[in-house]
Amino acid sequence: MSWEEYVRRVVPYTAGEQPSDPDIIKLNTNECPYPPAPGVRAAMESLAKEADRFRLYPDPDASVLADAIAAQYGLSEDEVFVGVGSDDVLALSFLTFFGGGKELLFPDITYSFYPVWADLFGIPYRQIPLTDSFEIDPAAYIPALSKKENGGVIFPNPNAPTGLEASQDTVERIVRGNPDSVVIVDEAYIDFGGTTALPLIRKYDNLLVVQTFSKSRAMAGARIGFAMGDPKLIGYLKDVKFSFNSYTMNLPSLMAGKAAVEDRQYFDDIRQKVIDTRERFKRDLKQLGFVFPDSGANFVFAAHPDVPGPELFAQLRARGILVRHWDKPGISEYLRITIGTDDQMKKVTEALRDILGSR
Amino acid sequence: MSWEEYVRRVVPYTAGEQPSDPDIIKLNTNECPYPPAPGVRAAMESLAKEADRFRLYPDPDASVLADAIAAQYGLSEDEVFVGVGSDDVLALSFLTFFGGGKELLFPDITYSFYPVWADLFGIPYRQIPLTDSFEIDPAAYIPALSKKENGGVIFPNPNAPTGLEASQDTVERIVRGNPDSVVIVDEAYIDFGGTTALPLIRKYDNLLVVQTFSKSRAMAGARIGFAMGDPKLIGYLKDVKFSFNSYTMNLPSLMAGKAAVEDRQYFDDIRQKVIDTRERFKRDLKQLGFVFPDSGANFVFAAHPDVPGPELFAQLRARGILVRHWDKPGISEYLRITIGTDDQMKKVTEALRDILGSR
Repeated sequence: MSWEEYVRRVVPYTAGEQPSDPDIIKLNTNECPYPPAPGVRAAMESLAKEADRFRLYPDPDASVLADAIAAQYGLSEDEVFVGVGSDDVLALSFLTFFGGGKELLFPDITYSFYPVWADLFGIPYRQIPLTDSFEIDPAAYIPALSKKENGGVIFPNPNAPTGLEASQDTVERIVRGNPDSVVIVDEAYIDFGGTTALPLIRKYDNLLVVQTFSKSRAMAGARIGFAMGDPKLIGYLKDVKFSFNSYTMNLPSLMAGKAAVEDRQYFDDIRQKVIDTRERFKRDLKQLGFVFPDSGANFVFAAHPDVPGPELFAQLRARGILVRHWDKPGISEYLRITIGTDDQMKKVTEALRDILGSR
Repeated sequence: MSWEEYVRRVVPYTAGEQPSDPDIIKLNTNECPYPPAPGVRAAMESLAKEADRFRLYPDPDASVLADAIAAQYGLSEDEVFVGVGSDDVLALSFLTFFGGGKELLFPDITYSFYPVWADLFGIPYRQIPLTDSFEIDPAAYIPALSKKENGGVIFPNPNAPTGLEASQDTVERIVRGNPDSVVIVDEAYIDFGGTTALPLIRKYDNLLVVQTFSKSRAMAGARIGFAMGDPKLIGYLKDVKFSFNSYTMNLPSLMAGKAAVEDRQYFDDIRQKVIDTRERFKRDLKQLGFVFPDSGANFVFAAHPDVPGPELFAQLRARGILVRHWDKPGISEYLRITIGTDDQMKKVTEALRDILGSR
């Protein structure tokens, strides 16, 4: 016998590759192709001048950042919770809201960390198949219609990795139909033309809306995510967080995050650029014969009827273009291609045309 | 019925107060009274120039920082794990190593988060009383002597909030006596004159040594902690971490942390200053009639035979000096007083003299 017998054994997760070669066109982790708001640079310059502040613990409430987010979204601070990326916020929400012993519901094709966090916290779950066109069927999530109770619901909107957005009617039906469960709408990709469920948080106290600075605010390197919901929900989240880890948001995150969220014009500009590029790229993909759900995110999830997904992935990789591919049933023919700059996407289109032509 | 029935209910933790009044002498959270290494400022200046890098996810392995730590401690990178403060590293270690269903052992007077993390992950635990002089009795932690098996051992060295250091003989006996369990030595306060168990990690593959940048490196605001151990232990920690949260260390932490850890001279200078001030303060306390364990940390845990702890706390607070007091059996007569600058500690001594004289 040895201590190794008692170690928690897991399947190590492989994150999207982070290549160091600057010549690679990196479209595999849904980062923003544009820099963060200019204020972020200024915030880091201020921090350099005030580096002495590092000696102190940061504000555990992250108030400077939570206040700035609240102000931008027309909320009060007690409706906002801030965490170390939306992964942190979501995992904590699983722990706080989904521990009642009943099945958590989420789509079968969705963000791959949902089953991981459920397993981590011992939460039973049931994955509900998307329709053949990758859509969420609200009836399957509503106890009165499905005749099955649940211990919570979570889905991304737009969904990942399909990019497909559920209508607000679908979202509201699910929230309204689950008064006995917390419903989390994971809006990591909402800022690229989608409609947020945020207005519903004042109508339904069981709705938590989670967003992130990693995509539309070009701040993946800062690790900032946030949740918005009824003060009761936010209060429970804070209680659980403070019960086991008081200080997680570091000083640079607070300063850089505040600067980023306060520049609404820049935010609107870069997400519009991403949207415009995405729509152009969709037209190019269609011309090349690709099929894809009509993405509302900063990526397109595309397959070609003539070329297997793994081959497309490898051929793009050989041409210095890195996208994401999953070797999973139902989606193995698809590539998830992050929307980069116009110039990058033209190169992707050329490469795809070249790959298709060379067959 | 409502969703609230299934919410995880916790006792909200109250962290040490973080007053905004700059005139308060803040000696309540064991922060370093000196600024971080000058390189931290330079690192933040570089970051300002390279703010575009925020758009990318940070290196999930935090290699730039883990490498720098490994180099300073004469280790290889696979012997080092980095996390968001030592609280993050410790909680993850509980999850990874203490889930075998047997009782985790730790002292009854110790860091208050140990029982919290044990509860969080469903780990049974047994708190072992310190001796009357606040010492750890190694025999109680060794199955062959106590006749009780365990599922892990953790203790801070020096212990918190007593400040008392266990000898390396005690530490090694506990590690050697537990080949079937992981033993974590939480060395948050080791740099203030203590002897680290680090050399033992190459002798015992069941020993994990955890340290932090928050005290001796004056970087509480950066949220950096780290663990050092056998590559097998570190590998298991990384597997568990990557299985549910890939990106936690943000870009500023990596850059500021590297700069801080690489300046060994500055590190040695500030911790020596804290040690010198502590020893002077101990002499002053003794003269005033205080009793206290002989602290090896950056705080002193002191009581006065004539004045109740709560009264001392309140009287200091009224004089603009904030220290830490716990209303718990066995320690309620004590104050934990962080070592500040010489000037600050002289003011504390004067205030204490004043309080004692006015009775």
